[in-house]
Amino acid sequence: MVGGGQLARMTHEAGIPFGIRFKLLSDTPQDSAAQVVGDVVVGDYRDLETLRAFARGCDVITFDHEHVPTEHLRALEADGIPVRPGPDALVHAQDKGVMRAKLDAIGVPCPRHRIVADPEDVTAFAAEGDGFPVVLKTVRGGYDGKGVWVVDSAEEAAEPFRAGVAVLAEEKVDFVRELAANVVRSPHGQAVAYPVVESRQVNGVCDTVIAPAPGLAEDLALKAEEMALNIAKELGVVGHLAVELFQTRDGRILVNELAMRPHNSGHWSMDGAITSQFANHVRAVLDLPLGDPRPRAKWTVMVNVLGGDYPDMYSAYLHCMARDPQLKIHMYGKDVKPGRKVGHVNTYGDDLDDVLERARHAAGYLRGTITE
Amino acid sequence: MVGGGQLARMTHEAGIPFGIRFKLLSDTPQDSAAQVVGDVVVGDYRDLETLRAFARGCDVITFDHEHVPTEHLRALEADGIPVRPGPDALVHAQDKGVMRAKLDAIGVPCPRHRIVADPEDVTAFAAEGDGFPVVLKTVRGGYDGKGVWVVDSAEEAAEPFRAGVAVLAEEKVDFVRELAANVVRSPHGQAVAYPVVESRQVNGVCDTVIAPAPGLAEDLALKAEEMALNIAKELGVVGHLAVELFQTRDGRILVNELAMRPHNSGHWSMDGAITSQFANHVRAVLDLPLGDPRPRAKWTVMVNVLGGDYPDMYSAYLHCMARDPQLKIHMYGKDVKPGRKVGHVNTYGDDLDDVLERARHAAGYLRGTITE
Repeated sequence: MVGGGQLARMTHEAGIPFGIRFKLLSDTPQDSAAQVVGDVVVGDYRDLETLRAFARGCDVITFDHEHVPTEHLRALEADGIPVRPGPDALVHAQDKGVMRAKLDAIGVPCPRHRIVADPEDVTAFAAEGDGFPVVLKTVRGGYDGKGVWVVDSAEEAAEPFRAGVAVLAEEKVDFVRELAANVVRSPHGQAVAYPVVESRQVNGVCDTVIAPAPGLAEDLALKAEEMALNIAKELGVVGHLAVELFQTRDGRILVNELAMRPHNSGHWSMDGAITSQFANHVRAVLDLPLGDPRPRAKWTVMVNVLGGDYPDMYSAYLHCMARDPQLKIHMYGKDVKPGRKVGHVNTYGDDLDDVLERARHAAGYLRGTITE
Repeated sequence: MVGGGQLARMTHEAGIPFGIRFKLLSDTPQDSAAQVVGDVVVGDYRDLETLRAFARGCDVITFDHEHVPTEHLRALEADGIPVRPGPDALVHAQDKGVMRAKLDAIGVPCPRHRIVADPEDVTAFAAEGDGFPVVLKTVRGGYDGKGVWVVDSAEEAAEPFRAGVAVLAEEKVDFVRELAANVVRSPHGQAVAYPVVESRQVNGVCDTVIAPAPGLAEDLALKAEEMALNIAKELGVVGHLAVELFQTRDGRILVNELAMRPHNSGHWSMDGAITSQFANHVRAVLDLPLGDPRPRAKWTVMVNVLGGDYPDMYSAYLHCMARDPQLKIHMYGKDVKPGRKVGHVNTYGDDLDDVLERARHAAGYLRGTITE
């Protein structure tokens, strides 16, 4: 696996029962996954020779993130190393312009959008629809709210163009909530769909995920699952695909973003599903039959643990474990910095209010925003 | 953790979410746990200086097996390294003579037993009770049926005395089945009890575990749990304690063996309990509040996967995963040898017959004893 973040850490954890050998390419020996994996190569994934040396002796390569240059992936494939997901699929998670063009071509509903050339072009884009505000995104390099701007005028639209990367303009969707449809697809074309979840963001960062999405009409849930399975098939995805969705006020579902790796909106599955997203990603990448994605509990809630003002979470950790012996804490081994994702908690049960309260309390207590 | 077997492998897996650093002392770099742990020291646990060097910088030491010499553990403690379980507790899992004497002293029912000096003394022991057969055990060094003999006469009783280790004679208990009571205790004295399970042995090796034990009367289950909690307390156990039990034809429960580490009879908890035995062992050893030990499913069944005649299980692996997408396979990364424990499978659900059939089929298919 290329990339030493928490997704690689949790993929290694999920891979241990399969009896496989897991090899990691990590930026530093201190990265989240590098702390727990046996076979670690420290190096820069942007350097082709480093990647090539790492890949030698691997049966298959997969990724913790989408930043490996497409041409490097093609070079690995030319060397005879299977890359899953492959470059032709992964480019749709790397480049929002390519993603939108493909989704348009296969008839998947998206927010109104087009590539814009300059701030005047943004004004023209706004005028073609309901006017400002308009959402601007650099087509490459954004994540967790970075590389995304909501602008109210041509004057405000100058900054996104400064990076020299193509800029995508999108209508600001009038959504009631965000959903995510997570699916996993194997090289055989076998695919499984996790229940559609509700994803709540705070400051552009995923905060809470509820599985399944409360009150979601069955036909809309089915439509979202089918849409995600169809995208996985049409784009040739192998492994995990997260489709982030807007549920609009007028009852439509529009695709916001794609991620081709285990995803924050699927972390609930570690304790809430028969087979976790990480285990199914491993199974897909290795072309093993996929596991059952169905939930084990009526409700599962995930809340991210962000760093607070105190670097030492130990006493909060004790408190949370003692307060709730059913709480599932997943820490990433990262230094605590304010606002940094350092872990997540999962809770599950029959009563959604109770499950939500337990997860929020634990995450808030660990961050230091709840003190009783 | 000292010892690189599958128990250490699964303890590492369970420890990853706690954000801890896990360090392993392994006999070889190929050992089951050494394949998946980042920080591995290869060395011999029987050598005190190796142990001391390994322990330097560890916050606490625990074990994958009970073979570390008691005097080495005392030396580590003298160096200021917490050892959990400590030598005074662990000796009861290392020496069956010490264990029986202690259980007698605290009033825990055991099979009739005493240390015997020679074959003639075995005849005397038999005559004190119902005669032959008599069970003979070397007080140290036995596991999985090794170091245990069932003899029908003084002539047959010669072999156990050849090792030069003290020999314990025990009545051959007329049991209807074997049970196991698994408990975990922290340095604080907090303790949790898993539901009592039924354990079925084949040729002295654990084959199948059913959680909870089917048809076990509630008062007997409670008695077994209390007995195990009491033993943990009286012996000062920190970490996981497995109490192997005989359920006799006349409705009594007698202690067969003790193990002070995660145990084969607790592997079901990885997929069947809210908190697995491995996670609770980590929590206890680190003096963290313990997790909820209750089952998540009505029935969970574990069956060990033993090696068969074919060293390559890959195609059987594919078949089992495809046949049962809910099957949980746990492989240990070991080379397949006939009769060797190389993994286990867990299944769970509401219908015991179905859950048993699925686990047995998968384990049998992987071994090669079932081919359809």
